[in-house]
Amino acid sequence: MIPDHDTIVAPATAPGGAIAVIRVSGAEALALCDRIFRGRTPLAGAAPYTVHYGTIVDASAAAETPRIVDDVLATVFRAPHSYTGEDSVEISCHGSSYIVAEILRLLIAAGGRMATPGEFTMRAYLAGKLDLAQAEAVGDLIAASSRAAHALATNQMRGGYSSALETLRERLLHLTTLLELELDFSEEDVEFADRRALRDTMEQIGREIDRLCSSFALGNALKEGIAVAIVGAPNVGKSTLLNRLLHEDRAMVSEIAGTTRDVIEERANIAGVLFRFLDTAGIRTTGDRLEQMGIERTMESIRRAQVVIRLVDAQHGIDQDQSASQIEIRPDQQVLTVYNKMDAASEGFRLPEGALGISARRGEGIDALCEALRNAVDTEEVYHGDPVVSNSRHYEALTAARKSLAHALEGMDAGLPTDLLSEEVREVIRHLGEITGRGVITPDEILKNIFSNFCIGK
Amino acid sequence: MIPDHDTIVAPATAPGGAIAVIRVSGAEALALCDRIFRGRTPLAGAAPYTVHYGTIVDASAAAETPRIVDDVLATVFRAPHSYTGEDSVEISCHGSSYIVAEILRLLIAAGGRMATPGEFTMRAYLAGKLDLAQAEAVGDLIAASSRAAHALATNQMRGGYSSALETLRERLLHLTTLLELELDFSEEDVEFADRRALRDTMEQIGREIDRLCSSFALGNALKEGIAVAIVGAPNVGKSTLLNRLLHEDRAMVSEIAGTTRDVIEERANIAGVLFRFLDTAGIRTTGDRLEQMGIERTMESIRRAQVVIRLVDAQHGIDQDQSASQIEIRPDQQVLTVYNKMDAASEGFRLPEGALGISARRGEGIDALCEALRNAVDTEEVYHGDPVVSNSRHYEALTAARKSLAHALEGMDAGLPTDLLSEEVREVIRHLGEITGRGVITPDEILKNIFSNFCIGK
Repeated sequence: MIPDHDTIVAPATAPGGAIAVIRVSGAEALALCDRIFRGRTPLAGAAPYTVHYGTIVDASAAAETPRIVDDVLATVFRAPHSYTGEDSVEISCHGSSYIVAEILRLLIAAGGRMATPGEFTMRAYLAGKLDLAQAEAVGDLIAASSRAAHALATNQMRGGYSSALETLRERLLHLTTLLELELDFSEEDVEFADRRALRDTMEQIGREIDRLCSSFALGNALKEGIAVAIVGAPNVGKSTLLNRLLHEDRAMVSEIAGTTRDVIEERANIAGVLFRFLDTAGIRTTGDRLEQMGIERTMESIRRAQVVIRLVDAQHGIDQDQSASQIEIRPDQQVLTVYNKMDAASEGFRLPEGALGISARRGEGIDALCEALRNAVDTEEVYHGDPVVSNSRHYEALTAARKSLAHALEGMDAGLPTDLLSEEVREVIRHLGEITGRGVITPDEILKNIFSNFCIGK
Repeated sequence: MIPDHDTIVAPATAPGGAIAVIRVSGAEALALCDRIFRGRTPLAGAAPYTVHYGTIVDASAAAETPRIVDDVLATVFRAPHSYTGEDSVEISCHGSSYIVAEILRLLIAAGGRMATPGEFTMRAYLAGKLDLAQAEAVGDLIAASSRAAHALATNQMRGGYSSALETLRERLLHLTTLLELELDFSEEDVEFADRRALRDTMEQIGREIDRLCSSFALGNALKEGIAVAIVGAPNVGKSTLLNRLLHEDRAMVSEIAGTTRDVIEERANIAGVLFRFLDTAGIRTTGDRLEQMGIERTMESIRRAQVVIRLVDAQHGIDQDQSASQIEIRPDQQVLTVYNKMDAASEGFRLPEGALGISARRGEGIDALCEALRNAVDTEEVYHGDPVVSNSRHYEALTAARKSLAHALEGMDAGLPTDLLSEEVREVIRHLGEITGRGVITPDEILKNIFSNFCIGK
């Protein structure tokens, strides 16, 4: 992608605050702002990292005195020490939608162009300020709504992630150099790359890629929210529990069994981790076609969930519950058995070992349930900054790299000629490079796809 | 009100943008930020109007290395050259709600206090950076959604308004000084203040106050939106016209006469002026109790409107229209007669002199109607920066000042003793001072009331 060096402008803050910030970046950023900014001195002569008080004026009007649009602060950044690596200005104005629109209009009239979503960060990437994985982490960071998602994005943005990949890539590059050296001396039939050591290294790299791939389940779940299905017999209080966990009246609750038909999905942040709760239709044998459809959806939710809360009515106990036999749990899913309506249980009722007792209606036992949910998710490696993959584009590239690596290993066993072997290893290197954008030319469409998910002004 | 000198913090931008700005202001602002900011050098030693790149860290955690919350830019302002007149820092971080909440939490843990709405501007007022009328204009400026409302707020914020009042107040102060001088020499029975000149000046000031008061109708309308009632017989297309003016399907439209019952009110910005359109129930003689109630509300809307669009069906003409006789128009109201359904009018139909022809359904003639609406409002004085009163608190103070002035004039005619006359003039001065907050002590409750309408962070 050939970098555009025209000057781009965009609002960087959401509408509705006390102040708004407008970003201007590009070779002409200072000159462009000077056309509409009146301060003590022009910005073109200003030192980097300085802030200047002045007014934005509309000099285009026919009036003798230019119309004042707003009092602003303009912050000057100079290439290469700015976010984009280009000359940049941030204009901080009063947070009125009218004023923001007027300043953007004036900047565009003065020669600026409205930035596309993520264009500032794309320029930072093209200027080599960030690699692709770091640039993507900027978008994740802005979207982060829980401590775990924030830690994931921060680790990735600081490059812990990229450097792990870079180490693997460099080791592979070293291997191919040795292999390709053999090609130069092919007539002499020497082996610079000891095949046994080569195989060991490739297997070791394969294990590291496997580890990164397997971290994706956690990484993706922490970013998108850990799916928790709330299941059980009709009228056991599933929707009441959902409302309690969300602190609001989200799901319709009634005394009538089968009130919930559609699967309701809601997110809640519990102790720094985002959970996606799936409230489901009660499971029972029924002739009602609509209710059957609801139960089918429930089964689908259970398949998607990482954690299943199996809710039982403490008044009737688990024996009365037809739902248990119909739920299939995979080994990678965690199940929490929770007895609801403890306040209405008979006096002799004893909670089975390992089960939790709550009253969703009264809010009793909810703290313990939240703690159990939180413990069901291991976030240690995320908080310690270990590389955890959370981006599906990276996961795909890692999977492709793993596949090429397996090919190369098979080829080695089959006595593949050195030039073809080297080609296979180069393929692994290419896939790893796709993640950070280093050592490869990333096609325009992929760049556009990555940055179009950003908000405007970033 | 005794100024609080504790250090206040608040987000200054709305949630959801690419970046967010957090404001910190108070004697401890720099020291407080240095507890959580790690840059090249501490902010405490930084020059004013400089920007510093660094990280916000949570050092409270037990971990050996402090947890990094975000990469930020910190801008340093030093007293008295800041918005509040105090030492201030603006922290520009990534626009994630989690990050903003974390930074606020850390700032408060470091000794800051969450600001109340408008507290930054209140501090600016208490520091003498702005008078009260100017501070109120800051709030209006942020809320401005049309060019006219923006021009009103800008003029007021630049003090054109305040200086007009200050001139009046000074002339009155001069008069009372002369009157009070007479009291000091009361035994000698001299007259320093020529009663004839005094009366002339007071009458002149009265006329100026009258002019300001009468500008309130326009100022308030421009700020809140010019009220336009759309009235006419049932099924003449009033709701279709409203939807057309708003570019959306706001009002329910049907072929059935009497579809609209409640008065629907919607705002639209037309050529820089905000209009409030009131779509009303069709006026006709009816036995339906609900429809009668709708018609009563229509009559009430007409009384509130500055402009009345009288809509007539071009197919039937004005003669068939029972509604005309029932509408009462005041001399200060403007009426636009508009023939709708021009596309369905008979071939021989001729538009009466001064009337507009449109097809609301097809969108024909709407531009001409918008121009006519725009011409119905005279915004010249606003755009030329003439003092126009738009704040109801100011209007009340001006009305009270006018009343006291009338009292003083009556007293003079009745030969009121000099000390009582001086007292009356001081009352006028006090009311004028209430507007700018100059020369009077503004009670805490009034200050709180003014600033609580602001958004947080301003």
